[in-house]
Amino acid sequence: MNTLVLPTYDDVVQAAARIAGVANRTPVLTSRTANELFGAELFFKAENLQRMGAFKFRGACNALSKFTPEQRRAGVVAFSSGNHAQAIALAARLLEMPATIVMPHDAPAAKVAATKGYGATVVGYDRYTEDREQIGRDLAARHGLTLIPPYDHPDVIAGQGTAAKELFEETGPLDAFFVCLGGGGLLAGSALSTRALAPDCKLYGVEPAAGNDGQQSFRSGAIVHIDTPVTIADGAQTQHLGQLTFPIIRRDVDDILTVSDDDLVQAMRFFAERMKIVVEPTGCLGFAAARNMQEQLRGKRVGILISGGNIDLASLAHFLAG
Amino acid sequence: MNTLVLPTYDDVVQAAARIAGVANRTPVLTSRTANELFGAELFFKAENLQRMGAFKFRGACNALSKFTPEQRRAGVVAFSSGNHAQAIALAARLLEMPATIVMPHDAPAAKVAATKGYGATVVGYDRYTEDREQIGRDLAARHGLTLIPPYDHPDVIAGQGTAAKELFEETGPLDAFFVCLGGGGLLAGSALSTRALAPDCKLYGVEPAAGNDGQQSFRSGAIVHIDTPVTIADGAQTQHLGQLTFPIIRRDVDDILTVSDDDLVQAMRFFAERMKIVVEPTGCLGFAAARNMQEQLRGKRVGILISGGNIDLASLAHFLAG
Repeated sequence: MNTLVLPTYDDVVQAAARIAGVANRTPVLTSRTANELFGAELFFKAENLQRMGAFKFRGACNALSKFTPEQRRAGVVAFSSGNHAQAIALAARLLEMPATIVMPHDAPAAKVAATKGYGATVVGYDRYTEDREQIGRDLAARHGLTLIPPYDHPDVIAGQGTAAKELFEETGPLDAFFVCLGGGGLLAGSALSTRALAPDCKLYGVEPAAGNDGQQSFRSGAIVHIDTPVTIADGAQTQHLGQLTFPIIRRDVDDILTVSDDDLVQAMRFFAERMKIVVEPTGCLGFAAARNMQEQLRGKRVGILISGGNIDLASLAHFLAG
Repeated sequence: MNTLVLPTYDDVVQAAARIAGVANRTPVLTSRTANELFGAELFFKAENLQRMGAFKFRGACNALSKFTPEQRRAGVVAFSSGNHAQAIALAARLLEMPATIVMPHDAPAAKVAATKGYGATVVGYDRYTEDREQIGRDLAARHGLTLIPPYDHPDVIAGQGTAAKELFEETGPLDAFFVCLGGGGLLAGSALSTRALAPDCKLYGVEPAAGNDGQQSFRSGAIVHIDTPVTIADGAQTQHLGQLTFPIIRRDVDDILTVSDDDLVQAMRFFAERMKIVVEPTGCLGFAAARNMQEQLRGKRVGILISGGNIDLASLAHFLAG
């Protein structure tokens, strides 16, 4: 039996030094309208303004920066149809190493184009008959590539934790902090930073109600697997937490909350109308949950992690049209 | 004959001190995608993230801050169906003075509600049969109110100039700077700051092609009046430059450019898709003009003033849907 070595806040600190000057130090936005609505003081960490439009660049950049010269020569492989693919592709380009991304044949053309635009090789697969993880492992074995999974990797978790580290450095301790939850890389990394920098802060993970495997796992004490959930939060359509992310979340997070897709649309509209920013559905999870517990937050200092802003214009237009 | 006393950069410096801590010091955004597209270094002054969503708050706040105790007691009156109305209403609320805003009966309900929400009294008029300027002057005379026009006022111009001052303080001198042009308050104020802080910078005013009175005036040397232009840039539907704004613009600006409504939509889509920010059509004027002269800007350091982000969600959705 393997003993898992969980990343710590020290790893987050080292990740921060490693990605400094390459990843954006994103702004912490405030909104008087939101503050008046809540009767509280809200701080939004705007990872939609991160490079390639999402926090995922932090973890990818940290993981690839640790490659040995030999690993760099052979290159990286990743499987993802979303932000992780673009994050790996961009980080690989910046570090001048080859990248191979396994994406379904029916992935949106814009995402395939963006990934190729960063210089990555895209390998297609049939999502109904083929197993992308197996394809990724085969490519890794055959060509000596290093596989970087989207969330269950210590360097990815440590990299994602740098966003919360920056937030607390700017705001000081907070009373409550809301973070999106898919596979748990961002939440686990944020948990490491929160417990180090704001130990008394209530930390909430937020996932779509349709895919509440994280909540079930958190409450039952064992990783629960579900079918791919149907939700507009495409970054949180994960089926289960990871072997590394789950124990950190179980240890350091106060609760897992869920919100409806309609809550997400309302939050997206608030961001566009009142804060003049574009946030993808998954990026709205934290704020949507905070809105659902406004009463309890009155008079508090509240952090919200906006995870990303990558949404195609047609979908954005659809949601904003209401 | 009156001799006009034009505001100077000293007035901008004093305005900056007056509004410090009340107006937001908005971020200067950069975009690697835009830089790669242009082969240049672009700096976006994001006044869509200003209080009430537009630069207009700067001028209103500066003008109202200079009121005497007697003027404050009686209050302010303004005529506007757009951002100036909300800017005056909010500044008046913060300075605890009464505000009366003259708006057309058919103004969008959301704008009327927002203006009332700031505590202002809204006086309606028929835009086809009544003269709003006359109504404003009558109210001022009858109740001892002070009328603050939307652009042709030295304190308004000086206040608007603080945005460019902040930009140059952050970026240092630039090679070219693109600023939206309606009545000229923002452009004249920006011109004062540009000539003081970056004397060699090419300064361009940009207006919608359908309403090129500014370009005509700039080139002919006299203020040209036009009918209300038909354009989606509702903040630039002015009919003529002002007695104060025109001479400053004529003296300090290098040229006036025009762009089509389609150019504005393309810019709005770029902002939403690539920079994750919401910009109203008028706020896109500067970037749209810069895109039209990309070749000449290669290798340069370029400033873009984003004037505001106030657009209703239905219109935003319409433009983004393409």
